[in-house]
Amino acid sequence: MNRPDDQSLTGYIEARRRQVDAALEAWLPQPPTCPPVVIEAMRYSVLAGGKRFRPILCLASAEAVAGQTGTAGAPPGPGAGPHVLQLAMPAACAIEWIHTYSLIHDDLPAMDNDTLRRGRPTLHVVYGEGIAILAGDGLLAEAFALLAREPQSSDPGIVGRKLRVVRAVAEAAGATGMVGGQALDLQAAPEHVADGEAVRLDADGLRMMHGKKTGALIRASAASGAIMAGADERLLGAVDQYASELGLAFQIVDDILDVAGTSAEMGKTAGKDAASGKPTYPALYGLDQSRRLAADCVARANAVLDEAGLGGGRLSQIAQWVVSRTK
Amino acid sequence: MNRPDDQSLTGYIEARRRQVDAALEAWLPQPPTCPPVVIEAMRYSVLAGGKRFRPILCLASAEAVAGQTGTAGAPPGPGAGPHVLQLAMPAACAIEWIHTYSLIHDDLPAMDNDTLRRGRPTLHVVYGEGIAILAGDGLLAEAFALLAREPQSSDPGIVGRKLRVVRAVAEAAGATGMVGGQALDLQAAPEHVADGEAVRLDADGLRMMHGKKTGALIRASAASGAIMAGADERLLGAVDQYASELGLAFQIVDDILDVAGTSAEMGKTAGKDAASGKPTYPALYGLDQSRRLAADCVARANAVLDEAGLGGGRLSQIAQWVVSRTK
Repeated sequence: MNRPDDQSLTGYIEARRRQVDAALEAWLPQPPTCPPVVIEAMRYSVLAGGKRFRPILCLASAEAVAGQTGTAGAPPGPGAGPHVLQLAMPAACAIEWIHTYSLIHDDLPAMDNDTLRRGRPTLHVVYGEGIAILAGDGLLAEAFALLAREPQSSDPGIVGRKLRVVRAVAEAAGATGMVGGQALDLQAAPEHVADGEAVRLDADGLRMMHGKKTGALIRASAASGAIMAGADERLLGAVDQYASELGLAFQIVDDILDVAGTSAEMGKTAGKDAASGKPTYPALYGLDQSRRLAADCVARANAVLDEAGLGGGRLSQIAQWVVSRTK
Repeated sequence: MNRPDDQSLTGYIEARRRQVDAALEAWLPQPPTCPPVVIEAMRYSVLAGGKRFRPILCLASAEAVAGQTGTAGAPPGPGAGPHVLQLAMPAACAIEWIHTYSLIHDDLPAMDNDTLRRGRPTLHVVYGEGIAILAGDGLLAEAFALLAREPQSSDPGIVGRKLRVVRAVAEAAGATGMVGGQALDLQAAPEHVADGEAVRLDADGLRMMHGKKTGALIRASAASGAIMAGADERLLGAVDQYASELGLAFQIVDDILDVAGTSAEMGKTAGKDAASGKPTYPALYGLDQSRRLAADCVARANAVLDEAGLGGGRLSQIAQWVVSRTK
């Protein structure tokens, strides 16, 4: 598989990542209205680096929709000006806070009991479990405060888009989304099941678990960007279908890296899922077939984009980038 | 202190509690979109009884504002018709879910390590810590999904009110509100401080901690009802000031009951705060002076209501009811 326009994609991702990092820090709660220990704990986890995959996807989705329709107030065309980025940046950051909260809680001893994340000790190792639970809770709640507050506008159209994003993100984070997925994952781990009887996940169960645990927020990332850029139902449907394929590819690649990568490359404990007997794509299908499955997802994602007139841009490149990590 | 119209207040509270209980259950996530264990855990905690103080305050606030202004679409007058209850009920339930989530997480071993709540074993005792953390996370996220979804309306005025409620509730739940308050509380408990050095709270510190931990959500309850009923800034300000006094009275009464009550009466471990060396109002001021402080709060709350033209109704009665629990 070739990597079209790879140089420019790298530049794009770097530019967006810098913008996202700056906004993530600027919008975090500040003293003195919040106790210092909570701020420190939030900052430790939010500003620990990370690929910023979800926020960049959110921004790219907003730019793609604005570039096609010009509905965000900017003239149609590649790039679509800074306005659409301002519209989508709060959603991008709120989603990254929610992603970070989920990592903090998933790492807790009562969950995956992980001690290494993004190359550093996990939050509860440094601040204790109580503060780690609270920092996660705080990021989840603050994400919705940010979505409701920014961008500040009394324009009924923007107010409506913001409320729609609140709903999409909350449903992705909730019991039918991330929380449900983590519960299924927990039940598949023998050490956390009360009666010692883990639920064995088959291929369908594995896809459903990941669809909730990671897929739902990836879809909400793309949908939020599209909504803030003023996508109509047709474009929104296409972006959602694209993100659904992308999310599955992302997870398959993550599983492949868990087997093939090292802890240093990944910044988290490698081989842990496989070692703990958790089901993974390579375990079910083998490495080669897993790579093919991921490539198939990307092909379907690109077909959806092409049909909606969104093909050949950053969204297509992001899909290629996701699978290129396994090379 | 006399209890005006006590009979009718009891009937009002009972009627609203039944409506709240029914809505709380109806709006909880259902199978098959959510794993059964998460649903069971959420139901265990949400449907465990409870006074429903916050949702009833939210509804009473909406009724008071609608009764005075008629802005919710119903004709002005006592009661203000069922319409305003439909407008405010989602906020009432979302806030009770958030209150429940906070109890679940506060009870965890890494926090207050409580095993009894509302007369039953706490959630983590029954379902394990992992599922308890997830059920709390799920209730917090689902609360915002509910606020964004219900009441269903494309009316820009209602959409704007809903987004405003999302912001008020999220800020109350977040790092400057409940999460910050619980962090301060945790730091005042010797067993949870990493270096063994608990922060000694004085009277001001105690008031700030409670203002965040319980006061913020009580204020958001009253504000949300007022916002959904279409309150203008003047009425909203009065309702918020009332709720601020009410929240402080509520906490002082809770501390008094912790000293004076029994576990059976309270449905949770009595005397625990005092025994653990946590600062309480009776410990700082004595029982009699604490009762006077609570009564002063209620007097100020009523004065605010009177000045705003909201006096003499359910909101005044609710304030009296809060202090009457200490008799």
